[in-house]
Amino acid sequence: MTMTRTEIETAYRSLQLHICAELEKIDGQAHFQEDAWDREEGGGGFTRTISEGRIFEKGGVAFSAVHGPVSDAMKKQLNLEGEHFFATGVSIVLHPRHPRHPIIHMNVRYFELDNGATYWFGGGIDLTPHYVDPKLANDFHQQLKNTSDHYSVDFYPKFKEWADRYFYLPHREESRGVGGIFFDHLDEKCGLTKDQLFHYCLDLGRLFPVAYKHQVDHISLSEVSERELNWQALRRGRYVEFNLLHDRGTKFGIYSGGRTESILMSMPPRANWEYNLQLERDSEEAQTLAFLQKTHAFKLD
Amino acid sequence: MTMTRTEIETAYRSLQLHICAELEKIDGQAHFQEDAWDREEGGGGFTRTISEGRIFEKGGVAFSAVHGPVSDAMKKQLNLEGEHFFATGVSIVLHPRHPRHPIIHMNVRYFELDNGATYWFGGGIDLTPHYVDPKLANDFHQQLKNTSDHYSVDFYPKFKEWADRYFYLPHREESRGVGGIFFDHLDEKCGLTKDQLFHYCLDLGRLFPVAYKHQVDHISLSEVSERELNWQALRRGRYVEFNLLHDRGTKFGIYSGGRTESILMSMPPRANWEYNLQLERDSEEAQTLAFLQKTHAFKLD
Repeated sequence: MTMTRTEIETAYRSLQLHICAELEKIDGQAHFQEDAWDREEGGGGFTRTISEGRIFEKGGVAFSAVHGPVSDAMKKQLNLEGEHFFATGVSIVLHPRHPRHPIIHMNVRYFELDNGATYWFGGGIDLTPHYVDPKLANDFHQQLKNTSDHYSVDFYPKFKEWADRYFYLPHREESRGVGGIFFDHLDEKCGLTKDQLFHYCLDLGRLFPVAYKHQVDHISLSEVSERELNWQALRRGRYVEFNLLHDRGTKFGIYSGGRTESILMSMPPRANWEYNLQLERDSEEAQTLAFLQKTHAFKLD
Repeated sequence: MTMTRTEIETAYRSLQLHICAELEKIDGQAHFQEDAWDREEGGGGFTRTISEGRIFEKGGVAFSAVHGPVSDAMKKQLNLEGEHFFATGVSIVLHPRHPRHPIIHMNVRYFELDNGATYWFGGGIDLTPHYVDPKLANDFHQQLKNTSDHYSVDFYPKFKEWADRYFYLPHREESRGVGGIFFDHLDEKCGLTKDQLFHYCLDLGRLFPVAYKHQVDHISLSEVSERELNWQALRRGRYVEFNLLHDRGTKFGIYSGGRTESILMSMPPRANWEYNLQLERDSEEAQTLAFLQKTHAFKLD
């Protein structure tokens, strides 16, 4: 027996709660608040947000399971051929307080049309340090590779490239961070069963707090300077640009009338913009920028 | 003899310099810096920015005059039927330092296809107070109406409604400010000559510093509170959302490979986001929000 959509929905909701519990341990201070919401056309979700923690300044771990008729907006934006859809997933963005800690994003989602006549999985994890540490970027990619290799050795290289293309800001000629993996429309055509694909997504979800904890544990902090905070706010500005100009989930959600507060929980607590910013040559900020201008060329050691 | 495109270009460049000089007088402290840039496919511009002034925290007054073949992106995004285009205009966004001073935006532009076989003017001015003062909103609209009425009594009501539709954030169910006027594709079909339409745009440009000075002169300032600064940053967040999600000029510029720094000079120096913000009942912030949720219903006294 393969997974039913209800089993997937239940597992994703449990995943959300598991991740929140692990993140609360990492934070050691703040707790998630939960908002339940209903979608008029069918389904709903639980949006869990954290703010003003020891580690996390602002972030959210959202779960939703929605269904209903395929609207014209969905047909147009998602190229869907079907009458009725079901979608469930967990979506996360965390903005840490300390500029030396990285922003992190994760999403796992399951989509089906017309009661399972077609289905697919999508997802991804990517890391956006304000200051790039190449060793920790490598560790992050290694973790994604290990989890992926367990299912298919084709996954990591393929999904890493996909993330490089996806998390790129053409107008800035920069990647938004050190990348990670990204995939969509993953179904049995890849050679794995639906159950295996589902477990792959679940394993990525379970890896998420482990991967973030690894980063936090290996970054030594000193007192924050104004300069670091300003750079963090500028990099958060880029994150805003990516999410509002390019992120498919955000754009689709906004244009199709999704729940705005849940969609925009990805926004940073504050962000700065400067006209034509000039960085000091060879400064840490310039080094990070140089890395981001060639992240797509990043290769695991 | 009607205006040539070179005459319009020259007049818009002069308008930019005139506006900058007037804004410097209002600021009384900061001066504009100018960046000249060239566009590979033809033309270029002068981007003038101001920062850390007495009144203006960050802002820009951009002039450009560009031409070249009509690209596929332009055909798609602008529905253009032609081979060669010419476009010139002045575009302004000013973010004031004090939360009691309003953000203001203006744009006047001239577009022609195939050496004038078709042409049109576009433009608009709109005001985005962090705290709405209905009397000053009314004054602003009255000024726009007076200037517009001089050319056609149809302009103000039509262009005011156009602005109400255009400067609306559906996902927030809010207008971005108290509105103003917006128009596009304005040509001789409206009953005025090309010269008259050009002078209308020029008059709006000249009104711009006068209208902003009127606001500044009629707002009495007291010492800024943390609460006001936070609200200002949140409203600036909405401004970012509008510009990156909805503003046609920004989206077209970004997706078609325009000069990013000039396009995004409209970004505020800093912006905040809070998940599911709750406002104190009947507070000034709640009153402003209530106004923005029905700005489209705003009518001149």
